[in-house]
Amino acid sequence: MKKINVGIVGLGTVGQGAIEILQKHHADFCRDQEVDLQLVAVSSRHDQAAHALGLLDIYSADLAHVTQNPEVDIVVELIGGVDAAYDCVRAAIAAGKCVVTANKALIATHGRELMRLAAEQGVEIAFEASVGGGIPIIGPLRHTLASNRIESVLGIVNGTTNYMLTQMSSGDLDYATALREAQALGYAEADPTADVEGYDAAAKAAILATIAFNTDVRLHQVATEGITRLAPIDLAAAAKAGYAVKLLAIAQRVGADGSSGIDVRVHPTLLPQAHALASVQGVFNAIFVVGDFVGETMFYGRGAGAGPAASSVVGDLIELARHRAFREVVAQPIWDTEDLPVLGLDAVQGRFYLRLTVADEPGVLSAVAAVLASHAISIASLTQQQSEPGQAELLFFTHETAETAVRKATEDLQKASLLASEALVLHIL
Amino acid sequence: MKKINVGIVGLGTVGQGAIEILQKHHADFCRDQEVDLQLVAVSSRHDQAAHALGLLDIYSADLAHVTQNPEVDIVVELIGGVDAAYDCVRAAIAAGKCVVTANKALIATHGRELMRLAAEQGVEIAFEASVGGGIPIIGPLRHTLASNRIESVLGIVNGTTNYMLTQMSSGDLDYATALREAQALGYAEADPTADVEGYDAAAKAAILATIAFNTDVRLHQVATEGITRLAPIDLAAAAKAGYAVKLLAIAQRVGADGSSGIDVRVHPTLLPQAHALASVQGVFNAIFVVGDFVGETMFYGRGAGAGPAASSVVGDLIELARHRAFREVVAQPIWDTEDLPVLGLDAVQGRFYLRLTVADEPGVLSAVAAVLASHAISIASLTQQQSEPGQAELLFFTHETAETAVRKATEDLQKASLLASEALVLHIL
Repeated sequence: MKKINVGIVGLGTVGQGAIEILQKHHADFCRDQEVDLQLVAVSSRHDQAAHALGLLDIYSADLAHVTQNPEVDIVVELIGGVDAAYDCVRAAIAAGKCVVTANKALIATHGRELMRLAAEQGVEIAFEASVGGGIPIIGPLRHTLASNRIESVLGIVNGTTNYMLTQMSSGDLDYATALREAQALGYAEADPTADVEGYDAAAKAAILATIAFNTDVRLHQVATEGITRLAPIDLAAAAKAGYAVKLLAIAQRVGADGSSGIDVRVHPTLLPQAHALASVQGVFNAIFVVGDFVGETMFYGRGAGAGPAASSVVGDLIELARHRAFREVVAQPIWDTEDLPVLGLDAVQGRFYLRLTVADEPGVLSAVAAVLASHAISIASLTQQQSEPGQAELLFFTHETAETAVRKATEDLQKASLLASEALVLHIL
Repeated sequence: MKKINVGIVGLGTVGQGAIEILQKHHADFCRDQEVDLQLVAVSSRHDQAAHALGLLDIYSADLAHVTQNPEVDIVVELIGGVDAAYDCVRAAIAAGKCVVTANKALIATHGRELMRLAAEQGVEIAFEASVGGGIPIIGPLRHTLASNRIESVLGIVNGTTNYMLTQMSSGDLDYATALREAQALGYAEADPTADVEGYDAAAKAAILATIAFNTDVRLHQVATEGITRLAPIDLAAAAKAGYAVKLLAIAQRVGADGSSGIDVRVHPTLLPQAHALASVQGVFNAIFVVGDFVGETMFYGRGAGAGPAASSVVGDLIELARHRAFREVVAQPIWDTEDLPVLGLDAVQGRFYLRLTVADEPGVLSAVAAVLASHAISIASLTQQQSEPGQAELLFFTHETAETAVRKATEDLQKASLLASEALVLHIL
């Protein structure tokens, strides 16, 4: 039985969950996986968690106690953020350790550099928990589905916003009430910015696109829009037209043969109700992958929480431990072998939902319609509703058009002072 | 670049699909996976396919041309059936080849022995395509989810029957019409026995249970019932009560701490419409896995067809090729490390749907109810409908009861000549 020594940096909920799994299933892993995973060092800023877990004898506030520890084979990085985690992972790799991390921002920002450092040192980095919590998605994309050219990946990868959208559509709650409810249940943080503005989903989109298309995609390249401007009126109009509204991470090949480049973005999207992703409710996540031979596949589960994230962290730990225990040579990591250009939104064609708040006066509708027509935007349907006194909401569903045309049209409407507030534009899948 | 030589036995649709992938994506696999997969030998009973594919120069009708070929590193077995495939795979292993197979019946019948032979020879056997076609499920269970104790696996793993049940519930078709439609579309074979009687699903259930519970489960241990006796009246009654009817492969731990044994079966099952599996339509497959830390996860995609099956076959090929290319020591396969008893249906408690066809006469209902009561079967709801003249259909939904009680009650009803035809009993999840 090969003994593999593990050190953990960061003892928050995921770290505690990972330790619980390692303790509860230690004998199972010895029996089934033929590796004896031993926790030999932990570090966190404060010692409360180590104290509560009875791990003070292997604890230090100094993370070098883990990353530079000659006993440690695999370092688990769970401190979050980018800069401190980056230093921690670099130090661990430089010391010849394999690394498991759940840190999406780190991988979406410094993934390529870390993979190269790891390759130079002959060690591995694993990050299944960085996308989709407990859902196996990095593994399937890298292994079973490696036989395919992946055409597109669509993901509901943020449980907070999916919970809020579920409540807003089924319970007719407004945005602020849905947010307060999510916060009360612990699904949203006190500062919900990273979730509701789509930044969390954008980091995951960057990682999914990187793995799916063998192309380094960084967080800052992902066009990102959150759910903060959605109102019950939009969800109701979408439902009436046969759509669910989901915050989607979208990564797809562009061009006739799919090799002109890739398009990576995060925004609220109208999905046909028959689409497999449309019925993903509450805090659940799901990732929908289309490959040229496999066709449509979907991976579904809990995207957050101590148990699911720790499940993926320890899954990675077992795999790296088995690699350490049973093989001599580490395969080169795959990262940016294909290296396609990441295209802007200009490349995107599609159908759109527009909510325009206008003055409820004669001639306004005709003026708005003229602006849309001037950008060759063809209207599939229009509903007009009263909102505030003296104001009307114009709800448009367009036919296929360029995203740039819609953007320019809403700019023109704004300049012509036809809008009482900023236009809301949602993509239709 | 490491060259890995591949030989394929069996050139049916899946074999042809695999060859298409190997040709189309050869350069991609070299670039992304750093393995140069070369097809060097093929065999099938007749040479038409090899001729059509332009592979006559590497073809022989004698499968030893593949399995005993010193050039071949990995043998892909796609001949189907059990006996010939068993001989083929044994010969390949004995000759030191790794093996990829899509053969569920082979693995569900001889899996343990083949794994042991492979371990003795230091080679690997991979069989992702044997369950769920293109859906990655064996890989996730063995890798990412290995951190969990798997509590249960529920699968829609037969596309033919799922298509038929979808049509029977949405289109009000009867069984015979749905079967003819599936045959016309190529979803069902001329002899549909293996699909409609549940044997195909049972082999997959055995494999899923083996991997999930580290316990060798053989095909003959799976309690199996098909869909041949279902009628539109049952699907309508289920729908009215809030259920979808699916042919489920069920594998679960039994007992308070889940270690008394396992229960593995295949039968039509009433699933609450809110269950993630209930909305899996048509020929799609899905496997729902519950683990102690990850919670609920689901894997969805196309369970049949040349492309999906070939996707999994070539995914396995890539993985074995990378193992051959980059590591020296092969890890021991995990198969029956836990070795739990496979329990019979006697261990099963649940709720049931019963359709009893009885004479439409005074006193019959009271006699039937008395028999059910004598077995302590408590009724949640009852609907009586006319069917043939002089006959009535009694549709019962029971409360929680033992499966043995239901079985004995239907035997008693039969003995008492109360039934005009055999009772239909469906499990409710």
